[in-house]
Amino acid sequence: MINYTASYTDHYELTMAYAYFEKGRHNERAVFDYFFRKLPFNGGYAVFAGLDNLLNILEDFQFDSKDLSFLSQAGFSKHFISYLKDFRFTGNIYSCREGEIVFPTSPILQVEGNIIETQIVETILLNVLNFQTLIATKASRMRQAAGNRQLIDFGLRRAQGVGGYHASRAAYIGGFNSTSNVRAGRDFGIPISGTMAHSFVQSYDDELTAFRDFAITHPNDSVLLVDTYSTLESGVPNAIRVGKEMEARGHKLKGIRLDSGDLAYLAKKSRKMLDDAGLTDVKIAASNQLDEVIIKSLLHQGAPIDVFGVGTSLVTGQPDAALDGVYKLTSFKGKPRIKISENIGKITLPGKKQVYRFSNSTEQWIGADAIALDDEVDIKMIYHPFNPHKKTAVKDCVKTPLLQKVMEDGKRTAKSLTLGEISLYSSERLKLLPAEYKRFNNPHIYRVGISEEIKKQKDALIVSHENQ
Amino acid sequence: MINYTASYTDHYELTMAYAYFEKGRHNERAVFDYFFRKLPFNGGYAVFAGLDNLLNILEDFQFDSKDLSFLSQAGFSKHFISYLKDFRFTGNIYSCREGEIVFPTSPILQVEGNIIETQIVETILLNVLNFQTLIATKASRMRQAAGNRQLIDFGLRRAQGVGGYHASRAAYIGGFNSTSNVRAGRDFGIPISGTMAHSFVQSYDDELTAFRDFAITHPNDSVLLVDTYSTLESGVPNAIRVGKEMEARGHKLKGIRLDSGDLAYLAKKSRKMLDDAGLTDVKIAASNQLDEVIIKSLLHQGAPIDVFGVGTSLVTGQPDAALDGVYKLTSFKGKPRIKISENIGKITLPGKKQVYRFSNSTEQWIGADAIALDDEVDIKMIYHPFNPHKKTAVKDCVKTPLLQKVMEDGKRTAKSLTLGEISLYSSERLKLLPAEYKRFNNPHIYRVGISEEIKKQKDALIVSHENQ
Repeated sequence: MINYTASYTDHYELTMAYAYFEKGRHNERAVFDYFFRKLPFNGGYAVFAGLDNLLNILEDFQFDSKDLSFLSQAGFSKHFISYLKDFRFTGNIYSCREGEIVFPTSPILQVEGNIIETQIVETILLNVLNFQTLIATKASRMRQAAGNRQLIDFGLRRAQGVGGYHASRAAYIGGFNSTSNVRAGRDFGIPISGTMAHSFVQSYDDELTAFRDFAITHPNDSVLLVDTYSTLESGVPNAIRVGKEMEARGHKLKGIRLDSGDLAYLAKKSRKMLDDAGLTDVKIAASNQLDEVIIKSLLHQGAPIDVFGVGTSLVTGQPDAALDGVYKLTSFKGKPRIKISENIGKITLPGKKQVYRFSNSTEQWIGADAIALDDEVDIKMIYHPFNPHKKTAVKDCVKTPLLQKVMEDGKRTAKSLTLGEISLYSSERLKLLPAEYKRFNNPHIYRVGISEEIKKQKDALIVSHENQ
Repeated sequence: MINYTASYTDHYELTMAYAYFEKGRHNERAVFDYFFRKLPFNGGYAVFAGLDNLLNILEDFQFDSKDLSFLSQAGFSKHFISYLKDFRFTGNIYSCREGEIVFPTSPILQVEGNIIETQIVETILLNVLNFQTLIATKASRMRQAAGNRQLIDFGLRRAQGVGGYHASRAAYIGGFNSTSNVRAGRDFGIPISGTMAHSFVQSYDDELTAFRDFAITHPNDSVLLVDTYSTLESGVPNAIRVGKEMEARGHKLKGIRLDSGDLAYLAKKSRKMLDDAGLTDVKIAASNQLDEVIIKSLLHQGAPIDVFGVGTSLVTGQPDAALDGVYKLTSFKGKPRIKISENIGKITLPGKKQVYRFSNSTEQWIGADAIALDDEVDIKMIYHPFNPHKKTAVKDCVKTPLLQKVMEDGKRTAKSLTLGEISLYSSERLKLLPAEYKRFNNPHIYRVGISEEIKKQKDALIVSHENQ
């Protein structure tokens, strides 16, 4: 759907590239980490998403003729434009699997290559991964709240422009069942789902005829919207009448949808009216400004809702709207690199790395990851990344590496998975995370520590910069 | 950049279309209103954006072969698929100009055509207009705060996926000067702008050499990022040294950028250090989680910042992240239509309409719009849309219609304007809005009233539905 060329980047990636190029440093090797600093939604975990899209984009990431002509007009030299013309991403990528449960500070993905290619891909990488990870995480929270009830993405109309396309993808990874977004259904294989709008009912002189016409033309999948005029006085009674007529024809009314008013109250009243009429199989769907907190509250109140349609808060990741993921240089010419900040939490971790997740003998996660150097094997202790006095022994735990090579010399090495496979992997992984990390209020904080070697390297680099 | 086909829609648009088609109602004429109910950011106005993109999309909105094959598999009949194959948008559109200052309840745009085409375009229309209007409004607030200082959009990396592409466009309409987004620069003619990242400095063993290399390769547009190690102890002193070296070569250092720490304090200290060194022309740029409130506060503190780089909160429209724009049926087969809701604010206004803006003899707006029927000329009084006891006399004011035909039979009739023209129009219009509507805290509420005829029609339809 989208034509990503290498001009999908920030201007400063190119001004820096130009300086590297002019100074003859453009073939120097660099390593960058992708990580975030703060979990979205004050939650206890995030769901990593967007990897498959990113790899596809990078395999074919180049400047087209329009890009080159634009950059030429923007003042870049002929020599450099000619370099950009042949530009391809030829680096290596090491990443967590898409759908992995991830935590702050830990590198989720590492990019290794020459300094220009690793720099130019920064913007698209952050753009794709930050957004899809945000939305998959939001969706996962709604899945936690909804239990095994149906969750449908209704968000495209309120999505941030074309962002809605990938929002539907990420929502499915996070645990949604279907989407109203036909294009996402077509391209990503997500089941599509939809009912009717108020306009359909309004277009008729009366609601009953509208319901009858819809039921006749949709004998197997009619979900009738019952709140155009009055939910309990006309909508539900008319739906029941049409449901009984469908029964008489050997069909079944699939459901009704509530889209305004007190959803808990209306769902209970509607359920009773449907049941009293013998329509016990007719499902109740609800929509209207839902989020995970409202879904949880509705179910806590015993609202007999079978299907939740969620729009705005899902596809825009309200209230956060962005994941603060960053992309930081950790190695250049084989030497570890650091950024020092007045804010201690913004000091970066130097060196090429591996991340290990620890579990106990029953395979349940113990709630700790270690960030280590990529060639560091024996990890007995992890240290708090910012507070050297806090440490945790991990020597009796099973450790599993999370970063695997997924791209080599610009070509995918990891096979492309279906969205169903990614979603299933994610839900399986989430089962290994103890419940206290999943609650909405003050979740337990997952410990992400650094290894002895990373700690040494970081301390040494800080001292060396202080002495400059 | 984006291949919009007619599958960029919600599934229910198609299930409804199918019912209309099967019942032979698909050629009936319908009118829909686009409007929103609540101003974003608790502000006093919104900036309408996205129209030009929408018209371009609708001129070429059709199902491609992939769409048709997908919908066929999804269960739609051959007969209906064949109808969709020939589907084009052939309706009329009446709209405010792009960049117009708009308010809740008033139709900003009206779509007229057969019921299927007016229904299928709902999703793309809402998706494009809701998002760009949100971002243009956010940008306009930042422009209010920044006065005549430079505003640069830095948001692509934190944008909601490809949504960032149009976010840059909308930001320019709302008053930004430039963008880091190269692709948006290329396609929309927005000036591009960018400095350097921490990684550039980190890639060197020392900051001074990094600055020197950058200055040599960018003699006319070097903006040095001074906070990689220590802003005041190394960043600014090194920038001054390089600035003086540039002067000696007949060049000028353009600026420095602060990206962390206390921006007000650091800007004042840096300004003094630069001035003391005779570098009074060197600009100070600042970035790091800025929004309109922080910009206002920095300037209120006297921070000598010349350029603001704004990312996340601009391109995602934090904290709202979505405009609640809706698309409601107001006429079918020439008859006015209404939706009644348990929430009085959600009752729709029936009939095909015109919107008038009132001004006084000095051309300043008086702070009132009237929603009238499209053939209603003489408007003496406007009524509160939800409270019949509140009304305002407008008979001595100059009234200007806001809705103009921009598309006829599916073809644009309004000429396509440059982004610069749209942005200029918007800023000129905003000047006509009195200051009390522009403040951030408890802005004056702009009155949007309904005419006598709309009021009569609405009351009659409510009574008629109550009696059914």
